[in-house]
Amino acid sequence: MKRLAAFVGLLATAMTSFAQNADSLALRRLSDDIMWNSTCYDNLRVLTKTIGHRLSGSPEADKAVAWGKAAMEAAGADRVWLQPVDVPLWVRGKETLKVQLDGRFQQIPMLSLGNTEGTGGKLLERELVCVADLAAFEQLSAEQVKDKIIFFNYKFRQDLVNTFEGYGDAVKYRWVALNKAAEKLAAGVIIRSVGTGADDAPHTGASRYYDGLPHIPAVAIGNISADRLAAACSRSKCKAQLVSNCSMKGVKRSYNVIGELKGAERPDEFIVVGGHLDSWDVGEGAHDDGAGCVQSIEVLRALKASGEKPRRSIRAVLFMNEENGVKGGYAYADSVKATGEKHIWAMESDAGGFSPRGVGLEMTATLKQKVRSWAPLLEPYGVYDFSQEEGGTDIGPLKKLGVPLAGLLPDSQRYFDLHHSANDVFETVSHRELKLGAFTLTAMVWLADQYL
Amino acid sequence: MKRLAAFVGLLATAMTSFAQNADSLALRRLSDDIMWNSTCYDNLRVLTKTIGHRLSGSPEADKAVAWGKAAMEAAGADRVWLQPVDVPLWVRGKETLKVQLDGRFQQIPMLSLGNTEGTGGKLLERELVCVADLAAFEQLSAEQVKDKIIFFNYKFRQDLVNTFEGYGDAVKYRWVALNKAAEKLAAGVIIRSVGTGADDAPHTGASRYYDGLPHIPAVAIGNISADRLAAACSRSKCKAQLVSNCSMKGVKRSYNVIGELKGAERPDEFIVVGGHLDSWDVGEGAHDDGAGCVQSIEVLRALKASGEKPRRSIRAVLFMNEENGVKGGYAYADSVKATGEKHIWAMESDAGGFSPRGVGLEMTATLKQKVRSWAPLLEPYGVYDFSQEEGGTDIGPLKKLGVPLAGLLPDSQRYFDLHHSANDVFETVSHRELKLGAFTLTAMVWLADQYL
Repeated sequence: MKRLAAFVGLLATAMTSFAQNADSLALRRLSDDIMWNSTCYDNLRVLTKTIGHRLSGSPEADKAVAWGKAAMEAAGADRVWLQPVDVPLWVRGKETLKVQLDGRFQQIPMLSLGNTEGTGGKLLERELVCVADLAAFEQLSAEQVKDKIIFFNYKFRQDLVNTFEGYGDAVKYRWVALNKAAEKLAAGVIIRSVGTGADDAPHTGASRYYDGLPHIPAVAIGNISADRLAAACSRSKCKAQLVSNCSMKGVKRSYNVIGELKGAERPDEFIVVGGHLDSWDVGEGAHDDGAGCVQSIEVLRALKASGEKPRRSIRAVLFMNEENGVKGGYAYADSVKATGEKHIWAMESDAGGFSPRGVGLEMTATLKQKVRSWAPLLEPYGVYDFSQEEGGTDIGPLKKLGVPLAGLLPDSQRYFDLHHSANDVFETVSHRELKLGAFTLTAMVWLADQYL
Repeated sequence: MKRLAAFVGLLATAMTSFAQNADSLALRRLSDDIMWNSTCYDNLRVLTKTIGHRLSGSPEADKAVAWGKAAMEAAGADRVWLQPVDVPLWVRGKETLKVQLDGRFQQIPMLSLGNTEGTGGKLLERELVCVADLAAFEQLSAEQVKDKIIFFNYKFRQDLVNTFEGYGDAVKYRWVALNKAAEKLAAGVIIRSVGTGADDAPHTGASRYYDGLPHIPAVAIGNISADRLAAACSRSKCKAQLVSNCSMKGVKRSYNVIGELKGAERPDEFIVVGGHLDSWDVGEGAHDDGAGCVQSIEVLRALKASGEKPRRSIRAVLFMNEENGVKGGYAYADSVKATGEKHIWAMESDAGGFSPRGVGLEMTATLKQKVRSWAPLLEPYGVYDFSQEEGGTDIGPLKKLGVPLAGLLPDSQRYFDLHHSANDVFETVSHRELKLGAFTLTAMVWLADQYL
């Protein structure tokens, strides 16, 4: 019996390595096709250069929905449809910030934080109070804060190698700082942008007011201006002049765009891959998250082009309103709950179109272990890190329904130079990096379809 | 005895992990300092924006030598000197290429290959013969080639994930094709650029004539023009009109720039880290290889700033003439041979200022094993690949002297979009990626100093 066991063991090993070899070849075929024939880079060019940025509820977002539907059809989806989503409409309007540098007022680049209310077009001129961080702010007396504009000069932690850790650390200055200041009756807030840039680009991004607190204006300035302003404030008292017109304009009807390849064996089981179609109202939303959209569409194209039908139904979803409400993510999860559709895997690409380095796993320990056994198949593509736990914002609401979540982890060094700023444009996307990311999504979807 | 052995084993393990923890903290201090305080990005800005490209023997190369010396001194080198190198001076001059697309002549972007001779300013108008590769060229009769301009339309292998493999495959069209054509008495050569670009930028780069063969002109065109020209040639006979003035202009005196931190324990043993100061005569030589230069200077700055003297003497070398002669690399190795200076490690950064992913090792198997044991220390920085065997061109001549060679391996996806083209400019360099590369060099130098 021992011999037989040994033989069976050998056979199992041989079969495993045979299967791994076959998988490796299947992935190589997908990769070769994507690196030569992918349409994702051209799709991104069209999205960014003919539509541009596309904040939820804007006319550009409407155009992007139509573009997404056509792109899904061109990719060979068996079925494409629009899923209604009601989204907030926030409008920036004209805005300027002048601050006293060397005594005189100088205009500096700025962006109001998303979802905030501006000055209603009126001039708000107030004395500035500069603090290094929230702890320093807490030391200020009520009088020191009241009716002032507080400048939170917190620096993004450049020393953290994974910039998403730095973002996690700094982003409270976008969410919390304005409310802390409003609590103490400040007149407004300026923050150093939540970004790593070596330039002066301001970065916007979602904020929100806590219930019952005044809706004070809150704006972001770039790193260079922040350095200059902090230096000026340390020399003498400075004032700021802010004029802004941003405000919430109610709710608009919009859509998630969904494309599907019907499964050959289990058409009623679903694998989802997605990115978000909306962007902030500056730049072109190229990395955030045009990249994730065109990569998700590419998954359908590449699987269709392979000539082999997937076992399960594969859906690419372009979610609407990730940036300032996540209404699309909730709408999709609500529909899954309502219909009871069985989802075995959901994956998101929303960390930029950079060279893929890993896949984050937000799922049971057992399943993680299984997925990590696929890692050697991805290593030849530079995708080696399966240690992180990241799904994504839009697929997040599926977690409650027990769906395993995965997130593409591209190299993070450049993301927060561009994120939510005017610099997030097509020219900063590498066609090869974008395609390798699309391949990684395709490979993970293919493996999930084969082995889950 | 067994117990004692077990105890000694435990002790050894504990000591090893204590040492690893101390090393890990030492590297973290270096990394923190570099990510916050490095001057390498600002140095690169000055080199690229105030000097620009700097082909060997050019006035810009002279300026770069002076810049390099000053930058080494500013970084805190104990000693900085210039090492004389005689370099070839190749001058491009004015050049244009017109080809018949849709019947009529249209000018397309082009660059003569480096080191080649042009048309002497005269118009060379000839019929074009388009071939997909060298094998197809070999099928042509002598008559089909004679007095024609041969267009080698070989495509860079986009399917190879490591673009250096693709480069190794395609670069023969820059070195071999013109000689094969000259052998059969062709009048000139056009090649599809050795580059991955999704644009129309032509890429230059070194070539050379084989002894006894005619010095025919040879130029590169971009990928988009190559597609158009191949399509035009497949429809009907096409002609090309080439005017070029490039030629070799003899030899000029130039220099390697060397900066040294004197070792505290073994000052007569040396560790070298370098990049090359010259570039092609287009773009700004930002990734190739301004990045390697400023990163090497950064190694000195960071080690000096750490406050701890290195055990050995550490040299940063800015090599002259990597691009079209490697005279600087040979000059340095000749001086090492002449003086008998003991070199225990030489490392090069000449693959772009992108996110570091690994370190290539060109050394004995025993030493490789030792170096690979350091890998866990680099993994937190995304540097995980120690499997490749790559030193570098400039340190290559040290191999004969038994010096272990190592090469920084950054992410390769974008390099051949830019390499040797007008697109290799400062704006394409990420400050964080550049600094992480500088850190990786610093860490490897530090570890070599500690453990070799």
